[in-house]
Amino acid sequence: MPPAETPGSSLPVVIFGLLACVRLTAFESRAADAGRSPSYEDRVTLGALATTAFTQFERLRDRLVGLGADPWSAMRPFQEAITGFHERTRPADSMEALTKVYVADSIFADLYLDVARSADPAIEETARESLADSGHAALVTERLRAAALADTCLASRLGLWARRLVGEALSQAHALTVCDDGLRGLFGDDGVAAAFERVVDRHQARMRAISLRD
Amino acid sequence: MPPAETPGSSLPVVIFGLLACVRLTAFESRAADAGRSPSYEDRVTLGALATTAFTQFERLRDRLVGLGADPWSAMRPFQEAITGFHERTRPADSMEALTKVYVADSIFADLYLDVARSADPAIEETARESLADSGHAALVTERLRAAALADTCLASRLGLWARRLVGEALSQAHALTVCDDGLRGLFGDDGVAAAFERVVDRHQARMRAISLRD
Repeated sequence: MPPAETPGSSLPVVIFGLLACVRLTAFESRAADAGRSPSYEDRVTLGALATTAFTQFERLRDRLVGLGADPWSAMRPFQEAITGFHERTRPADSMEALTKVYVADSIFADLYLDVARSADPAIEETARESLADSGHAALVTERLRAAALADTCLASRLGLWARRLVGEALSQAHALTVCDDGLRGLFGDDGVAAAFERVVDRHQARMRAISLRD
Repeated sequence: MPPAETPGSSLPVVIFGLLACVRLTAFESRAADAGRSPSYEDRVTLGALATTAFTQFERLRDRLVGLGADPWSAMRPFQEAITGFHERTRPADSMEALTKVYVADSIFADLYLDVARSADPAIEETARESLADSGHAALVTERLRAAALADTCLASRLGLWARRLVGEALSQAHALTVCDDGLRGLFGDDGVAAAFERVVDRHQARMRAISLRD
């Protein structure tokens, strides 16, 4: 039995609408960070991350159209909260921008994949494709790890920045899923608290992987 | 006989370096315009144009690497002039942003293709791929044409904006090609003036196609 749905929208439309909004906004945020980077290398890394996010958005939009939904109507309920997140977490430089991708986008991916997995295998598959950062994630990880190991002052600044990002990302993810009538039911028997604990555990493992204190 | 080369760089490296810089900067400019658009439709159109430009940049970068060149060293000589163009031509809204893509990017494509055609068929082919806007160009044309026909006040504002863009685009293209030792020789027997006349003719035809006064 599928859980209760948002009035007027089927569960796949709600989930793909959320993810389409997440990806289109990630594109804009990463591209803006690319444009502000003084270094060629960071422009290209962030540009590739932006392009990946846009291509993922296009796939979700096409899935929504295939379901007979209007993409923007499906995305609009989530737009303000997601834009607000990006406005509250503007990176000061490209190392902070890469940390934001690494920390926040991974938290969203973990949580939204959990939600999609509970919904339906076909939804999960599309969600997995649309949340994967393919090769770029490895590049970001390596870049951050090398920077943190080489410069303890930078590492401590990025550690504090990551802490802010976690707080903002968890509040946003909570607002978008637990407060949504259609999505709340997907957290399963162990409930919301357990889902968020799993997300925090995985975040802590990622912080250790790049030698940043959590 | 190939024309005189810029000291230290082969002709393909100069041309691909110029085009790589043009495309990476077009990505950043179009993405910034996408992020500023209040309308979903314009965010998606400009985002798709940005993503196309980035993919074209990646292909040029890979060609440069294949030639044994450092991509950033090949791009750097052109960066300041190209960034300057975008800073002098910041669109006030997304209709101006789309007009900028339609007017200026087409002028650059015409001129740089002329240059590449004189150089070598293999260079021309890569240049053609890296300057094509595939399906998006048709979308932009249709959007601008419909807007100009529906609103004479907007049409007159966009006509004046296009005039500014032409001036800036021609000066930038002139500075980057005619003032470059390696590229000047490529304008052929009929010379620089004829090449620029051809570019202006094609621009005027494009303006008529969207019902804007030239």
